[in-house]
Amino acid sequence: MAQAEFDNQAFRQALGSFTTGVTIITATAPDGTPIGLTANSFNSVSLDPPLVLWSLAKTSLSVDAFNEAEHWNVHVLSQHQQDLSNTFASRGEDKFKDISLEDGISNAPLIPDCSARFQCRNTVTHDGGDHLIFIGEVLDFDQQTLPPLVFQQGQYAMTARKPWEDVSLSSQPAAPQCSYNEDLLGYLIGRSHFQILYRMRKILDEQALEDSHFFALSVMNIQQRLTLEELNTHLDYTGHSLSEMDVDFLVRQDLIKKLDDDVYQLTSSGQEASLHHIAQAKAIEEELIEELGMGDVMALKLMLKRLINKTDPGLPDLWQEQDKK
Amino acid sequence: MAQAEFDNQAFRQALGSFTTGVTIITATAPDGTPIGLTANSFNSVSLDPPLVLWSLAKTSLSVDAFNEAEHWNVHVLSQHQQDLSNTFASRGEDKFKDISLEDGISNAPLIPDCSARFQCRNTVTHDGGDHLIFIGEVLDFDQQTLPPLVFQQGQYAMTARKPWEDVSLSSQPAAPQCSYNEDLLGYLIGRSHFQILYRMRKILDEQALEDSHFFALSVMNIQQRLTLEELNTHLDYTGHSLSEMDVDFLVRQDLIKKLDDDVYQLTSSGQEASLHHIAQAKAIEEELIEELGMGDVMALKLMLKRLINKTDPGLPDLWQEQDKK
Repeated sequence: MAQAEFDNQAFRQALGSFTTGVTIITATAPDGTPIGLTANSFNSVSLDPPLVLWSLAKTSLSVDAFNEAEHWNVHVLSQHQQDLSNTFASRGEDKFKDISLEDGISNAPLIPDCSARFQCRNTVTHDGGDHLIFIGEVLDFDQQTLPPLVFQQGQYAMTARKPWEDVSLSSQPAAPQCSYNEDLLGYLIGRSHFQILYRMRKILDEQALEDSHFFALSVMNIQQRLTLEELNTHLDYTGHSLSEMDVDFLVRQDLIKKLDDDVYQLTSSGQEASLHHIAQAKAIEEELIEELGMGDVMALKLMLKRLINKTDPGLPDLWQEQDKK
Repeated sequence: MAQAEFDNQAFRQALGSFTTGVTIITATAPDGTPIGLTANSFNSVSLDPPLVLWSLAKTSLSVDAFNEAEHWNVHVLSQHQQDLSNTFASRGEDKFKDISLEDGISNAPLIPDCSARFQCRNTVTHDGGDHLIFIGEVLDFDQQTLPPLVFQQGQYAMTARKPWEDVSLSSQPAAPQCSYNEDLLGYLIGRSHFQILYRMRKILDEQALEDSHFFALSVMNIQQRLTLEELNTHLDYTGHSLSEMDVDFLVRQDLIKKLDDDVYQLTSSGQEASLHHIAQAKAIEEELIEELGMGDVMALKLMLKRLINKTDPGLPDLWQEQDKK
């Protein structure tokens, strides 16, 4: 491609292939106003002396103020700060109004709850075409174990970390002629589901509950008064359903009771049993967060929600407010 | 923290909170040797003129060669190039020996199969403490739709992109008193599983196959000769099992056959049915890749494999080579 044909849009897009974190850079303008903006052009430069850099468009309204500032702070944003990132990426007034700033070593605003922060002395700037490159000496820094916000191809993202060794489920390499392998998404999701359910089953077995009973009690924990038909509408996609016999069993176990009009409801011990199931499910999840990392589990959940939205066969909304019955 | 206490290890770790892509930078040394190294200090600087930067330790063996090079190329690595990243991060000789280099606009080596590439003229360097900052003018670039490799906290990672709007499954905000909400990992995995199985079920219903039959045929597609007991060892954790009645049904349907010694095997039409199921599962996966993006589905699979490894109750290895029977 000759330079004459240089396509700015395509160039931006190609640059977007390089994933970055998201930072907010802050300083105090000469008139005392706090200033701040979102930047993903941050990077580390040197360990000794500790130097970092970022760059700012020369057309930015804040360029003079940053240039004159003696100090600026870099905030590596966490997953929870996406709204903050949007606020500081816009030109709105008073971006700091809802933030409880902390005290730093300089007059540059210090924002809480970040993945990491670098308090810097503004040491030198270099010309960088339509941008100015700021280099700062890190005077102080801190870090919290909050999963960082990520930016890629113009979108926010989360990361799922790869273990050092590639993850393999089988001790054997997949036989080449076998097209059913451990990399099939449906297999991975099914096995994940059944392995988690397997851990739940210890509790369920104690109460002689089958999967379908467990699913039914969970639905009735949310949608509190349901006819058998309505209940089964929620269960249908799982391939499970409750028969009259199942209902009789759950009534005999004092887990559900029949109200006047063919409507069923959890009894107080049914409520208790369901809460016990939720507590167990949460304990399993906590354990996984411990082992896989919070950011990774968040990324997993995000992907599952997107998958669910894409494969939803039109399920009734489990959390929809009920008509009074 | 006073500067005297500046902890290099902690500083490195805090810098690692800022997520980056991974690049390989290449050039040709004055003696004609191709040189290259892995760097995550890359960033964009300017659109007009198109400038990018990266920095290199002054102690690097290649620093003089890069300094003298008229051109260097930046390769934004894809997920598939993790090994390449390791190779170029080490000091090994002949890093280029297995690479089919492509022709670029300069003498700098051009590596194929990257997410993006920037062919640059070495314009200026700036001092950056123990590093040298290289700024280059982008003369040419290209991009492929390959999910980029990501680096965070000293580990490789993959990204799961966040949609612009947060993903919510329910039209209602979760009732605060209801602790069973759509954010529970077990619920998300279960619903994902059942929604995918729901799509499979159209095919299964045509063949009057229940979930347990489907699971059994899938196992027998991989482990080809199994007794009923062995088969059920593989199914046990799903809560499903095959009864003698189920086996009789599958034999009557000509999907499996009994060999001499109580061992069962797929018939050719059983084989065909199972391959049909796999094809359907792969079609569903292809559709999801189309809708969610290849990189995101890869990240999802990676997380599921890690979850499976952490929750494995000690399942028999489905892909283990069988003893001859």
